[in-house]
Amino acid sequence: MSIESSPSPVRLKAVAGPGQPDPTPELDQLYRGFERELLVPLWTEIGDLMPLQPKSKSSPHVWRWDRLKELAAQAGRIVPVGRGGERRAIALANPSLGGRPFATPTLWAAIQYLMPGEDAPEHRHTQHAFRFVVEGEGVWTVVNGDPVRMSRGDFLPQAGWNWHAHHNAATQPMAWIDGLDIPFSYYTESQFFEVGRERIEPRERTTPARSRSEQLWGHPGLRPVSQPDATSATPLLAYRWVDTDRALADQLDLEGEVAGATLSPGHAAVRYVNPTSGRDVLPTIRAEVHRVRAGGRTQRRRDVGSWVYQVFDGSGQVTLGDQRWEVRRGDLFVLPSWAPFQATADGAGHLDLFRFGDAPIFEALHAHRTDVVG
Amino acid sequence: MSIESSPSPVRLKAVAGPGQPDPTPELDQLYRGFERELLVPLWTEIGDLMPLQPKSKSSPHVWRWDRLKELAAQAGRIVPVGRGGERRAIALANPSLGGRPFATPTLWAAIQYLMPGEDAPEHRHTQHAFRFVVEGEGVWTVVNGDPVRMSRGDFLPQAGWNWHAHHNAATQPMAWIDGLDIPFSYYTESQFFEVGRERIEPRERTTPARSRSEQLWGHPGLRPVSQPDATSATPLLAYRWVDTDRALADQLDLEGEVAGATLSPGHAAVRYVNPTSGRDVLPTIRAEVHRVRAGGRTQRRRDVGSWVYQVFDGSGQVTLGDQRWEVRRGDLFVLPSWAPFQATADGAGHLDLFRFGDAPIFEALHAHRTDVVG
Amino acid sequence: MSIESSPSPVRLKAVAGPGQPDPTPELDQLYRGFERELLVPLWTEIGDLMPLQPKSKSSPHVWRWDRLKELAAQAGRIVPVGRGGERRAIALANPSLGGRPFATPTLWAAIQYLMPGEDAPEHRHTQHAFRFVVEGEGVWTVVNGDPVRMSRGDFLPQAGWNWHAHHNAATQPMAWIDGLDIPFSYYTESQFFEVGRERIEPRERTTPARSRSEQLWGHPGLRPVSQPDATSATPLLAYRWVDTDRALADQLDLEGEVAGATLSPGHAAVRYVNPTSGRDVLPTIRAEVHRVRAGGRTQRRRDVGSWVYQVFDGSGQVTLGDQRWEVRRGDLFVLPSWAPFQATADGAGHLDLFRFGDAPIFEALHAHRTDVVG
Amino acid sequence: MSIESSPSPVRLKAVAGPGQPDPTPELDQLYRGFERELLVPLWTEIGDLMPLQPKSKSSPHVWRWDRLKELAAQAGRIVPVGRGGERRAIALANPSLGGRPFATPTLWAAIQYLMPGEDAPEHRHTQHAFRFVVEGEGVWTVVNGDPVRMSRGDFLPQAGWNWHAHHNAATQPMAWIDGLDIPFSYYTESQFFEVGRERIEPRERTTPARSRSEQLWGHPGLRPVSQPDATSATPLLAYRWVDTDRALADQLDLEGEVAGATLSPGHAAVRYVNPTSGRDVLPTIRAEVHRVRAGGRTQRRRDVGSWVYQVFDGSGQVTLGDQRWEVRRGDLFVLPSWAPFQATADGAGHLDLFRFGDAPIFEALHAHRTDVVG
Repeated sequence: MSIESSPSPVRLKAVAGPGQPDPTPELDQLYRGFERELLVPLWTEIGDLMPLQPKSKSSPHVWRWDRLKELAAQAGRIVPVGRGGERRAIALANPSLGGRPFATPTLWAAIQYLMPGEDAPEHRHTQHAFRFVVEGEGVWTVVNGDPVRMSRGDFLPQAGWNWHAHHNAATQPMAWIDGLDIPFSYYTESQFFEVGRERIEPRERTTPARSRSEQLWGHPGLRPVSQPDATSATPLLAYRWVDTDRALADQLDLEGEVAGATLSPGHAAVRYVNPTSGRDVLPTIRAEVHRVRAGGRTQRRRDVGSWVYQVFDGSGQVTLGDQRWEVRRGDLFVLPSWAPFQATADGAGHLDLFRFGDAPIFEALHAHRTDVVG
Repeated sequence: MSIESSPSPVRLKAVAGPGQPDPTPELDQLYRGFERELLVPLWTEIGDLMPLQPKSKSSPHVWRWDRLKELAAQAGRIVPVGRGGERRAIALANPSLGGRPFATPTLWAAIQYLMPGEDAPEHRHTQHAFRFVVEGEGVWTVVNGDPVRMSRGDFLPQAGWNWHAHHNAATQPMAWIDGLDIPFSYYTESQFFEVGRERIEPRERTTPARSRSEQLWGHPGLRPVSQPDATSATPLLAYRWVDTDRALADQLDLEGEVAGATLSPGHAAVRYVNPTSGRDVLPTIRAEVHRVRAGGRTQRRRDVGSWVYQVFDGSGQVTLGDQRWEVRRGDLFVLPSWAPFQATADGAGHLDLFRFGDAPIFEALHAHRTDVVG
Repeated sequence: MSIESSPSPVRLKAVAGPGQPDPTPELDQLYRGFERELLVPLWTEIGDLMPLQPKSKSSPHVWRWDRLKELAAQAGRIVPVGRGGERRAIALANPSLGGRPFATPTLWAAIQYLMPGEDAPEHRHTQHAFRFVVEGEGVWTVVNGDPVRMSRGDFLPQAGWNWHAHHNAATQPMAWIDGLDIPFSYYTESQFFEVGRERIEPRERTTPARSRSEQLWGHPGLRPVSQPDATSATPLLAYRWVDTDRALADQLDLEGEVAGATLSPGHAAVRYVNPTSGRDVLPTIRAEVHRVRAGGRTQRRRDVGSWVYQVFDGSGQVTLGDQRWEVRRGDLFVLPSWAPFQATADGAGHLDLFRFGDAPIFEALHAHRTDVVG
Repeated sequence: MSIESSPSPVRLKAVAGPGQPDPTPELDQLYRGFERELLVPLWTEIGDLMPLQPKSKSSPHVWRWDRLKELAAQAGRIVPVGRGGERRAIALANPSLGGRPFATPTLWAAIQYLMPGEDAPEHRHTQHAFRFVVEGEGVWTVVNGDPVRMSRGDFLPQAGWNWHAHHNAATQPMAWIDGLDIPFSYYTESQFFEVGRERIEPRERTTPARSRSEQLWGHPGLRPVSQPDATSATPLLAYRWVDTDRALADQLDLEGEVAGATLSPGHAAVRYVNPTSGRDVLPTIRAEVHRVRAGGRTQRRRDVGSWVYQVFDGSGQVTLGDQRWEVRRGDLFVLPSWAPFQATADGAGHLDLFRFGDAPIFEALHAHRTDVVG
C-alpha cells in the first residue's frame, strides 16, 4: 500500500479556543502538510484525549431479561450451534459504541442459549470468560475434561487458554450470561484462538454435582499440597450459590457486632477470588455479588473502569450516572467509567446484584481510583 | 564491662586434618592472640559451621500422648493459670537441644490444659501461634474480642500481635496443642510481648459455634469486599475439621480420575492457607494435614527445615531419619532438618497426620530445598 | 435519551459461512429484533473479534525525520504554546487508524518543538510519558520543581500525575519526541488531567547538568536510604546517553567471552528500568535501545503488543511485517502487534534503534507472548 | 539412642514469682515427671523466652583494626591456605556468645588475608557472603569464572551457591573483611556446601579493571535485555567506591534544596541493592554506607536485628546501647538487636561507616521494627 498517493485519512481544521492558533492561510498550509505526512497536532485534540476526568464514550443502559430470553429462545429455534459460529451467544451492544457488540469499551456480556441435548463445540482462547446463571439448570461446561454443573446463582470462571465445551443434559433449554474481556483484547490486539475436538468423549458427558476442580479447590482455607503454587487465574471452576448466599447473609448478621463488616449499613458484598492468590478470579475481570437489605440503599460511588450488572434477585431502583431505572430479576445494565452508581432495594425483600468489571486491569497498572460521591 | 581483663570466652586448640596448620609454638602463640582479641579462625570450625548438608543438632523423638495428658492433668490440679505464668502449657524439649523447651531449633510445641471454668489471661506477642485439637472441646479462644470455638480436628491460627485469651466454658478439662515460632524468634532476637486486660468482658464469654472471622472469611473462593487486601497472616481464625476431612477424602476419591490429585498414590494432603493470599497461614509456620490410605505408604522425603507431627487419627509406623517408631492417636514427634521421613498406615484404617514446620522462613529467603529420597 | 425510539446503531445482516444460520425470513425477523434490543450475535462477529492470532487494525509505517522537523519548525513560527493547547506536539497518525493521532492502538508518539526562550505550561496527567532526544539540547523539563536537562541520547521518563513544564533556555529551537499511553487510557477511559501554575519560579529556571533525581537515584546499584521503597514508576528522571552507549558497547565487547551477553550475535540491547524495582520504567511503557553491529542483522521476532521505533544513529533496513524500508537517523516507524520485525545495519557503522512499546500492560495481565520467527 | 534410660537433659526447679505454683512436694514430683518425659513448662521460662522487647544474648563490642591486621599478618606467615581449611579467615567472636565465632546471633564477620601469589581454593555454599575492602588492593575474586577486582571501598557481594575462589595477583599481602549469614543458617540448619576445582584456569587469572558482571549490570537504570528477570540475589559482583562516594556526596549537596534527601541533617546513607529488583543485595543481608558530616551526629535509632559496622574513613564516637566508644579507620563493632545506636563524627572530617545487618530476614517475615529513640 502506498500511503503517499492515497487520500490521507487525516482531516484537520482549525478550531477556536484557548491556546489555539489563529486560522490563517499559513495555518491552513501547515495543516495540509500534517495531513500529507499523517500527523495530527495535540493542541486541537487535547480536550477529547486528555479530559479532566474520564468522559466515557459509552452510555448507561438497561436490557430487560424477558426480552433477551424471548429473542434467545427464538434464536434457539433457527440458529444452529456448531463449529464456525461456535456459540449461540447474543451480546449487549452499548447504544453509544457504534453498534459494536461491546457492553462497555472493555467488556462483553451476552446471553447464551442451549437447547436440550445440544453441544457447543470445544475451543480455547486467550480472552478470559465466565458464566453466571440467573435461572435454570441442566448445562455442564466441560473444562479440560472436567464437567462442571451450572445452576442458578453459580459463577463459573473460565480463565484464558483452557479448553471448554458446553452440553445441555436436560430436557429444557437453558440460558445464562457470558462475560468476557473481548473488547479489551480486541482494542489491544492480544488475542489467540484455537479450535478443539469436534466432540467430547462419553466420560466427559457425565453430570456430577461437583466438578473435580471443586473437589480439589473448593474447601475454605485449604489448598491441595499436590497442586502448583499461585496461578494467574483461578483453578476453581465453580463458585456455588449456597456459599455466596451464606457469605452475604453472614455479613448482614454481623453488622450490629463488627464495625465495617459491610460496605455501608445494609449493603453486603463478596468478591469471587482465586484461592491460590486471594486476588481477582481472572486477571482482567472482577466479579462480585452485592446484597442490599430490603428498603436499603448503597452509597453513591464511582470507579475508574466500567461495570456490567445483572439483577439476581429482588427489585429496586438503580442510578447510573444521572439516570434512574427500575430493575427486576434478570435485567442487565452497564455503568460507564467514573459514572456514579447507587442502588435502592424495594421494601419487599433484599436486592441481589451480580456485577463484573475491569478493575483488575487498572489495579495491575496502578491506574485505579475510586470515590464515594456526595 | 571490660573484656580485656576478663578471661576470654574463646578457647582454641590446634586440630589435625586437611588444610590445618602444624601445631607449632608459633601457632599456639597465634591462638592465644586470637583468644585475647576475641577471634576464632574459620579453618578449625568450617566442618561444623559449613557442612555439606544440614547436620541437625536436634534428634528425632516421639512423645506419647497418654503420658503428656497425664502430666498435664496433674499440672491442672496443682499449677494455677494466671498473669505472670500466663498459660498452663508444657513444651516438648528435644533431647539433643540441652534441655531447652524447643521441639526443634525453630519450633515450639506444647500441650496446653485448661480446667472447667478457668481463664487464661489476655496478652499478645509477635510470635506466631496456632492451636490444634486432637480431642475434646469446650474451650473458646477470644481473639481481639471474637470468641472462637475449639473442637476435635480444628486448626486455630493466631498470628503475631493479636490479643488473645482462653476460657473453658465446659464442665470437663480440655487439652490441645500449641505451636509457635518461639525458638526462632528467640535466636533471632525479634520478640515483643504485651499483657492485656485482666479479664475479658461478658459478651466475650459467649460460645458461638462460628466465630465472626469465619462469618467473614470462611466461604470458599469468596472475600468480603469490606475487608482490607492481602494481609501477612490469615484473618480466618478457625479451620474446621469437617472441611479438612472432606478435602482429604475428595483427593483420594479423585485419584483414579485425575493425575496428580494426590502427592503419591494413597497419600492426600492439604495445607492451611491465608485466604487473602493463598499462602501459608502464618509468615513463619506451615501447617498441613496428611492422610495415608489404610495399608498405604508415603514417599520418603526430606526438606530443609524441621517439622513437628501429631497423629490425629489411626496408627502406623513412621521413619524419622533412620529410626522407626510405632505411633497412634495423639502421639507427637519431631523431624530434624534434612532428615528423611516416611509414614506407613496400619491396615485397619487411614492414618491422619497433622504437622507444622518452618518452611515459610526458608521459602521467603529463597533457601528452601526438598527432595524425594531413594 | 430514549433508545427505544431512536434508530438503533446496530445493523445486522446474515453472512454465509461455516456455522452460520440460513438467511430465511425468520432469521431476518430475529435480526430486526436484535437491532431493536441493542443486541449483536457472536456467530457473525467471531472471526473479527476472536481471530486465531492478533490481526492488527494498524499498519506498519515510516515517518521521515526531516519532514517532521520541517513541519515542526513551521509550527514553531505560527502556533503559540500556552494554556489550552498546552504543548506544540505533533503526533504520528497511523494510516489505518482512521486519522486519529494514534501511532498504534495503545501508543502516542509526537515530535515536540520549543522555540528559544519559550515555556510550555505546567500540568499533570495520569497518562505516562517520556521524552527521547535524537538531536539538539537546551530544553529543561521541570518535574515537581526539579529542572532536568535534555540532550542528544537522553531518555527522560515522566510517570503519571507528576507536575511538569518545559522551558527552552537556549538560543536555538529544540525538537524531541514524546511517547505516551494516550490511546490506551483513551480506550479504557481512565484519564485524569490537572492544570498547574501559570509560570514556574525563577529557581526552577536554573539549568543544572544533573537533576536532583539523578543525584539521588543515578548511581548504579545504590539507593538512598532516605527515600521510599519500591514505587510503581521510576523516580529517576534522566537516563543519560553516556551510560546507555557504554552499556551497549560493553555487551558487544563481551560477546566473545560470555555466552548470552547479547540477544543474538551482533545485537545488543538495554532496557530502561525503575531502579526501585528493576522493572519497566513506566507501568504501561517499555523503553529500550538496541544496537546492531555494522553489517549485522537481528533475529526476526514478534510480540503481542505494538512498538514505536526511532533510529538514533546509523542507517539500515527494517522489515515491518512483510514490508521492508530503508531508514536513517531520526526516522520513526511503527510495528503492529504480532507483526515480525527484523533490522539490518548498513556496513558503515552500527545501527542504534530506540524503541518503546506496551509490553508491560500484557505482562501485568499475564497476556504477553513473544516468538522468534523462522 | 535410648532416651528413656539416659539421664534427661531437662533439669527443672521451682521458681518464685507472679503466676508461679507453690514449691510443694507435688510440684517437685510433677517436675520430675516432666524431666523424664522431656518436657519443660512455659510458666518458668516465659520471662526469658518472651520478653517485652528483644533482650539480646550478645554484647556490643569493638575490635581494633590494627590488632586484627597484626594477627592476620602473623597467620599469613604460619597458616597455609588450601582445601580443608578453605580460607585464612579470622572471625569476630562476640564476648557474650560463648566463644563461638559469631559476631551476632545471625552474622559472621571475619578478616581474610591472602599473601602475594596465594590462591584460596574454589568452593560454593548456600550461605550468602560479601567482601568489603577498607584498604589495599591486588586480590581478584573469581566468581563462576568472572575475575572481580577488589580495591579500597569496594563492596563485593557473593550470593549463595555461586562458585568462587580468590587469588592475590599483587606483590603485597591483602586483607579485607568477609560478612556472611553463617550463624543464621547454622541455627536454622539450612546449609549446603560443595568443593570446586582444585585450581582455576589461566584465563581466570587475568586482572581486568571491570568484571563481566559490571559490564552487564553496572549501568544506572539500565538492564541487559538478554539477561533473566528478577533474581533473588544480585548479579552485580562489584559496587565500586567511586559510585558510593559520589552518591553520598550528592545527598549532602542536596540537603539545602530537597527536603528528606538525607536521613537527618548531616547524615547521608546509601544501601547496596540488587539491580534486578531494587531490593537488598542479598536475601538475608542488608549492606549500607553511612556518612556523617564533620562534627555531625546521627539520630539515636534502634532496629529489630543486629548490625556489624566497620569504620571506613574518619573517626568519631559511637554509642552502642548504653556504651560509648572512640573509633577510627578499620575498627569493627557490633550492635545487638534493639540496642540504640548513635554516631558522632569528629570535627576534622566526615565519618564514613560501612555496616551490614540481618534486616531482610525480618522484613521478609513481616517482623521488622525500627524506632527513633528519644
